[in-house]
Amino acid sequence: MSQIWIKNGAFITMAAGEPQLLTGHMVVDQGVISYIGEQAPQVSEQADIIDGKGLLFMPGLVNTHGHAAMSLLRGFSDDLNLQVWLQEKMWPMEAKYENADTRAGSDLAIAEMLLSGTTTFVDMYDRMDQVAQAAVDAGIRAFLTRGVIGLCSPEEQTAKLEEAISFAKQWNGAGDGRIRTMLSPHGPYTCPPDYIQRIIQAAHDLDLPLHTHMSETKAEVQQNIDQYGKRPAAHLDELGFFTRPALLAHAVHLTDEEIELLARRGASISHNPISNLKLGSGVARVPELLRAGIKLSLGTDSVASNNNLDLFQEIRAAALLHKGVNGDPTAVPAYTALQLATSLGAQAIWHDHIGSLEAGKAADFIAINIDQPHFFPRTDLVSHLVYAANGRDVQHVWVAGKQLVKNRELLTMDEEKIRFEAQAAYERLLV
Amino acid sequence: MSQIWIKNGAFITMAAGEPQLLTGHMVVDQGVISYIGEQAPQVSEQADIIDGKGLLFMPGLVNTHGHAAMSLLRGFSDDLNLQVWLQEKMWPMEAKYENADTRAGSDLAIAEMLLSGTTTFVDMYDRMDQVAQAAVDAGIRAFLTRGVIGLCSPEEQTAKLEEAISFAKQWNGAGDGRIRTMLSPHGPYTCPPDYIQRIIQAAHDLDLPLHTHMSETKAEVQQNIDQYGKRPAAHLDELGFFTRPALLAHAVHLTDEEIELLARRGASISHNPISNLKLGSGVARVPELLRAGIKLSLGTDSVASNNNLDLFQEIRAAALLHKGVNGDPTAVPAYTALQLATSLGAQAIWHDHIGSLEAGKAADFIAINIDQPHFFPRTDLVSHLVYAANGRDVQHVWVAGKQLVKNRELLTMDEEKIRFEAQAAYERLLV
Repeated sequence: MSQIWIKNGAFITMAAGEPQLLTGHMVVDQGVISYIGEQAPQVSEQADIIDGKGLLFMPGLVNTHGHAAMSLLRGFSDDLNLQVWLQEKMWPMEAKYENADTRAGSDLAIAEMLLSGTTTFVDMYDRMDQVAQAAVDAGIRAFLTRGVIGLCSPEEQTAKLEEAISFAKQWNGAGDGRIRTMLSPHGPYTCPPDYIQRIIQAAHDLDLPLHTHMSETKAEVQQNIDQYGKRPAAHLDELGFFTRPALLAHAVHLTDEEIELLARRGASISHNPISNLKLGSGVARVPELLRAGIKLSLGTDSVASNNNLDLFQEIRAAALLHKGVNGDPTAVPAYTALQLATSLGAQAIWHDHIGSLEAGKAADFIAINIDQPHFFPRTDLVSHLVYAANGRDVQHVWVAGKQLVKNRELLTMDEEKIRFEAQAAYERLLV
Repeated sequence: MSQIWIKNGAFITMAAGEPQLLTGHMVVDQGVISYIGEQAPQVSEQADIIDGKGLLFMPGLVNTHGHAAMSLLRGFSDDLNLQVWLQEKMWPMEAKYENADTRAGSDLAIAEMLLSGTTTFVDMYDRMDQVAQAAVDAGIRAFLTRGVIGLCSPEEQTAKLEEAISFAKQWNGAGDGRIRTMLSPHGPYTCPPDYIQRIIQAAHDLDLPLHTHMSETKAEVQQNIDQYGKRPAAHLDELGFFTRPALLAHAVHLTDEEIELLARRGASISHNPISNLKLGSGVARVPELLRAGIKLSLGTDSVASNNNLDLFQEIRAAALLHKGVNGDPTAVPAYTALQLATSLGAQAIWHDHIGSLEAGKAADFIAINIDQPHFFPRTDLVSHLVYAANGRDVQHVWVAGKQLVKNRELLTMDEEKIRFEAQAAYERLLV
């Protein structure tokens, strides 16, 4: 893995500015891109040479919101009202999780993500050491946080926060720096204000970002108004949430004032279009968020409300949905949607070392098999990636210069065993 | 091809009633399903035996609206306002089409459709003999119609109608009955009333169904009101359109009265959710259409406004979109979305001999590779097909008992040549 030469490939770099389709070469040294350009490079004799023919290279995708371990609940319950789904289906199953289940679900999710081109994922859940170990073992990049729900006794609150802090300290920088951590109140409707303030203080103490769910449903916004006399963005703002780098999942129901506030505070948002559709939560105001300059990114949310982790589906949904709902075919252009899943996605989670193919960036990249009918004719490869591709077109995947998927085979994970363990874990949960 | 035994497979039959997941066997004799059930069948010694392990069998998908030859324009123009897109991009390119282009585009589209599990497609375009010959050669099932635009001289109108009639007569029943034909005014906004009436009369004379575009955009509905004092459904009704079996593409902008009228007339609708989103046309009232009992089905529309022909994407969009837009996670359940692309789709185009796996039906079926992470755990295979699968999971395809795709290789088409010809045709059009 010391040196890799991608020879004669097509590259969508996702570097800042206009879309760049480069035909040429890329060199990776010790996990970092050292060269990308039209001219053939000088490489060492031991360099691993990858023939770029028929492949399109691009940065690995960045999934900025999810709950990997819930992949065990894929298809367990669909097409129900949110409260029934949560209270009667999800929570009773999740209550039965043990460490082995979290690990099995995380492995299944990571396998699916890698095979569909995601190289970095954000995850908020519990038993996070299991998720972190799964990520380290697989070689994927992960930004992890123990989400805490504060609807419990002060003792339990403290225990959960201590666990979250301990996890965040222990795992930040693990896996040769591929693992980073945050702190997370689950949401303003599941954490009392004073508890959120304690979490914010801890984030200051540890110099970590914050991640939370916000304004996913209308009901949750109304509850915030009823309980605290204000909408969630103002509520979090008053608690000091945005004094830290902060990533908000969903943010579907926002007023103009909230968008303006979030932009001013430099908050990041993870847009989860498919989960929001599937749960009937609504459609986020993405054109307005983009116009306001908010740091936007894409997330799948968990498999239980998606039901897959193919980020190409989110890219496509983000590009299509807002056109139709706003009656404007120019809303969210294809390239913008692709940026949300790569360069802008990386920026939204403060991972400035990934998200584009440029010298100096970490070598997190994927190769798409474009010698297939749905990539012809060769009019516009960005358009094809957004409107015609899907995760199954991903042929190879590298993270930090290490190849994790080769010809659609996982190199660091035993796919058959993972499927078997996931099935066994699910069957245990059913009992 | 005389006899095929699918041995030890899982089958989603799509037969009427509750979802049926059968573990067992299916036998095909002379292109027709002769047995499906749990017990192992008696077959001839020469039967071709297919091992069903790791595969999920289901009826081939039915795509009820498209323009195959436009696949040459995939990605040529995206994210523009509809009129700019049509008048400055699509029409000038389409005006340059010659027979070879229509054939190249049709071959590309058919290859893509077969590789993603579509076994029957509806097509409205011109140079339809090229499309028909491509379908016959590939072995796919097709329901074809020469769409005529009547904004021209009476002589041209007559010439076009005669061409449409001649095509419909010549090709109906071709390809061992796999090709069927219709007649098609392009739309009420592109055909004067008297011309539409002549087409309806011709459909009566030939005992053929009718297909047209209707109420895709708000502007087109307004134009109909301005020009004829009524909305498109009432306008077509007064012209006698629904005295024939009629398939309407899009039908996005409908009033309650129009839905009621179309239900009463037994009209069929092809819902094209992705094209409608991409062009900013809006979101069809699918929950209301289903409640009214309208014969609904799914179409991709052309690749130029989609930009692919993977009907699994339409299934998923149909299942997701209406939940989110209506704030109701119970709108369009997964199984309903799957029916729209199989059993209900077949009924909507009066192809009662396809659309489900039952003895006596034509053997149009596909096998999905479900030994992949995104099909685990095995909670609900219908859910997985709708919310997690895509066309690239299709492993094998049969039409009328003949295998057309085997392990993702086209058996009746030369994929590399098709890609090459499509690229060459596109480059000719650019000149």
